[in-house]
Amino acid sequence: MHQPSIILQSVNALQARAQQLFDALRDGSRDVQHGGVTRDSYGPGEQFAHTLMANHARALGLEVRHDDACNTYMVWPGRDRQAPAIVIGSHLDSVANGGNFDGAAGVVAGLIAVEALQAAGVQPECDVMVMGVRAEESVWFRVSYVGSRAALGTLQASALDVCRVDTGRTLEAHLRAAGGNPDALRRGTATLNRDNVRAFFEVHIEQAPSLAELRYAIGVCTGIPGNFRYPAAKIIGEYGHVGLPRRFRHDAALAGADFAVALDGIWAEWEAAGRLMAYTIGEFHTDAARHAMTKVAGEFIFSLDVRAYAEQDVAELEQRVAQIIADIEKQRGVHFELGGRTTAEVAQADATLMLALEDCARRLDIPIMRLASPASHDAAAFCAAGIPFGLLFIRNPNGSHHPDEQMDTSDFLLATAVLTEWLAAEICVTGRRVDLDAAQRPNRR
Amino acid sequence: MHQPSIILQSVNALQARAQQLFDALRDGSRDVQHGGVTRDSYGPGEQFAHTLMANHARALGLEVRHDDACNTYMVWPGRDRQAPAIVIGSHLDSVANGGNFDGAAGVVAGLIAVEALQAAGVQPECDVMVMGVRAEESVWFRVSYVGSRAALGTLQASALDVCRVDTGRTLEAHLRAAGGNPDALRRGTATLNRDNVRAFFEVHIEQAPSLAELRYAIGVCTGIPGNFRYPAAKIIGEYGHVGLPRRFRHDAALAGADFAVALDGIWAEWEAAGRLMAYTIGEFHTDAARHAMTKVAGEFIFSLDVRAYAEQDVAELEQRVAQIIADIEKQRGVHFELGGRTTAEVAQADATLMLALEDCARRLDIPIMRLASPASHDAAAFCAAGIPFGLLFIRNPNGSHHPDEQMDTSDFLLATAVLTEWLAAEICVTGRRVDLDAAQRPNRR
Repeated sequence: MHQPSIILQSVNALQARAQQLFDALRDGSRDVQHGGVTRDSYGPGEQFAHTLMANHARALGLEVRHDDACNTYMVWPGRDRQAPAIVIGSHLDSVANGGNFDGAAGVVAGLIAVEALQAAGVQPECDVMVMGVRAEESVWFRVSYVGSRAALGTLQASALDVCRVDTGRTLEAHLRAAGGNPDALRRGTATLNRDNVRAFFEVHIEQAPSLAELRYAIGVCTGIPGNFRYPAAKIIGEYGHVGLPRRFRHDAALAGADFAVALDGIWAEWEAAGRLMAYTIGEFHTDAARHAMTKVAGEFIFSLDVRAYAEQDVAELEQRVAQIIADIEKQRGVHFELGGRTTAEVAQADATLMLALEDCARRLDIPIMRLASPASHDAAAFCAAGIPFGLLFIRNPNGSHHPDEQMDTSDFLLATAVLTEWLAAEICVTGRRVDLDAAQRPNRR
Repeated sequence: MHQPSIILQSVNALQARAQQLFDALRDGSRDVQHGGVTRDSYGPGEQFAHTLMANHARALGLEVRHDDACNTYMVWPGRDRQAPAIVIGSHLDSVANGGNFDGAAGVVAGLIAVEALQAAGVQPECDVMVMGVRAEESVWFRVSYVGSRAALGTLQASALDVCRVDTGRTLEAHLRAAGGNPDALRRGTATLNRDNVRAFFEVHIEQAPSLAELRYAIGVCTGIPGNFRYPAAKIIGEYGHVGLPRRFRHDAALAGADFAVALDGIWAEWEAAGRLMAYTIGEFHTDAARHAMTKVAGEFIFSLDVRAYAEQDVAELEQRVAQIIADIEKQRGVHFELGGRTTAEVAQADATLMLALEDCARRLDIPIMRLASPASHDAAAFCAAGIPFGLLFIRNPNGSHHPDEQMDTSDFLLATAVLTEWLAAEICVTGRRVDLDAAQRPNRR
């Protein structure tokens, strides 16, 4: 019987290293004006993080490569370079004034796992690729999974023409400036596919404090929701005077309010029935150029994200939304212009891999709970491309996408230990393995 | 018996003059960027209108004066300069990209009435003052009735420290730049009061298409609503991730939606019971600097105007609003910060004057309907200072506070004819009155 404590020890020995990487990340991407960090997709903030990770990877002796979308691959070469690789990664961008760990923790976890196994004298049979993924935060380009879909050859060519919301420059222009090759992406060539990747593994902080609520340090993901989104929907009503009687009004702001409250009603109904979903109206506003205290709002702008964990649930919700809109249009005499629609498919975690991770945690004596991911993750793009994924969550009591996001390094190390334990088994260890009993490890794929 | 048709004829003879004044107003304050006109309070747009009206008044031989708040008085001197004057006026500012007639029609009506009576050879017993009022549109300083309250000595000194929403400069600074005397205003000296003003008369386009709906060209005002306002209220929730489960959310945008829908529920209830009120959430928005499609909104900003036609109704609505807020705070775990509150008192139209106006319309064969004003008007400030007011509305099928506001010059001339008919009786005509029978006219005050 091998000694799982060795894994814990060699991971824990790298606590200072992890802390140092997270501090450097924070220092280099701090948002001085609004707090937190800003690592803008295909902008200087994200670029900084890629460079930092690549430099550290080189110091560990890993090969550093980039693909046409400027994703960073930090490769620990396996004995058999032709064998399908294991990819461990997450995104290195963040929302504006977001948290330091959202995404980045998954890349740091991969690098720590590799360093821990190196220190333990392990040599991998296949390549282990730690991947820094580009542009996962859809707040910038309003397209989901830009970097991972590009790597997998599943990014729609039209995405390259989308403008970043703040710069107004296209993804193509941003990519080109970052040294990427948009022309190759338009052709849809896949760098990663189900033939050259055995599994994708992601570590990510949790978005909701579900782990924190039940006092688990880590969780294993059961699935990633699919969604449909309207990034820039509009309600057209009629501007009117503040004193306009009710029967004359076509109040676009009130129509927006009706919409939000109706959706909340559906959510309450689903919650009561134990059905999982979520909807978010993150941008929800009258037109700053035209609104006034003494004007009935004639236009209202909102973003919509609706998500669920089964494709038929997503479809049902889209029908409900259409019905709500039809009702409000009739009642208020307004018109909805939904604008562009984007979607992401539901992604079920690989059951074998999920059980393997729970097994690893049990061996390491780390309590772990199952958790449906509230958020989208790059892992879903791999799943859609036919590559099985495992996803571990780390406790975050303060929620994510804002500066108060919080992660204890000790929790991070627990997740990294489970990853490392799993990886040790997966990579069919050869070479001097003085402290690990390879024979005891089932190869789970 | 006098011949009312003479009044109609002499007013109608000035149709080209009225058109010319409105065209000049529009040409000089056109909002090229957003359409309509912009006559900003104590800014170049409003100043232009005051200068235009004053120049025309001088051409009619009127005395032109200004008070400490830069209101413009265009005085047709009466035989007895000490007798209480009749003031006819309205405001010359507009909302940003508003309509050309909102306010200005009342000043033009006064000047046309004077010119028509001059042409008819009438000489007034008392002064007739056509008043161009400053800063009625509270969208600029978020204070009601700045110009008329200043003239009446009822403007609170604290109003001088309020900043204009777009320039960020105080009312005091704007006033000083326009040539006014803010120090005198701080002392609260009244230029106009119940001793030197017999009555205030205002002509104004309607805000709601109530006249248009029932095919009346003009209406007589029964009362002006009182209101309470929160120009810049806030809901503090908690920013969170797009996938956050419902139980963890403190969605400020959804709380704003709850608030709007709950108030609409009250309005529907009052409407069904035949009780008059209105509420408007003209500004209603997430924070553009922090919101995002993938963030639950942690902050929501809104303006609130609630109005009714009896003080006890206004008070009841304020209690209902407080209860709604308490309920939402409890349900959503958010906090309302209402910020500054302003109020305006309910103003009942003078019954004698109202009947006199209906009488004038009848004599002129002009159909007229009674109408509760949906909006606030300077007349309410005069009423609060103990000066009786009369207020005529002109049909406007398209609503006001936007570029599509519409007024037919023929409707304008009907309102002006009623005003002129009333004025002819009120000013106790002396001098050569070849065409009007003064003996037949009751002096209604």
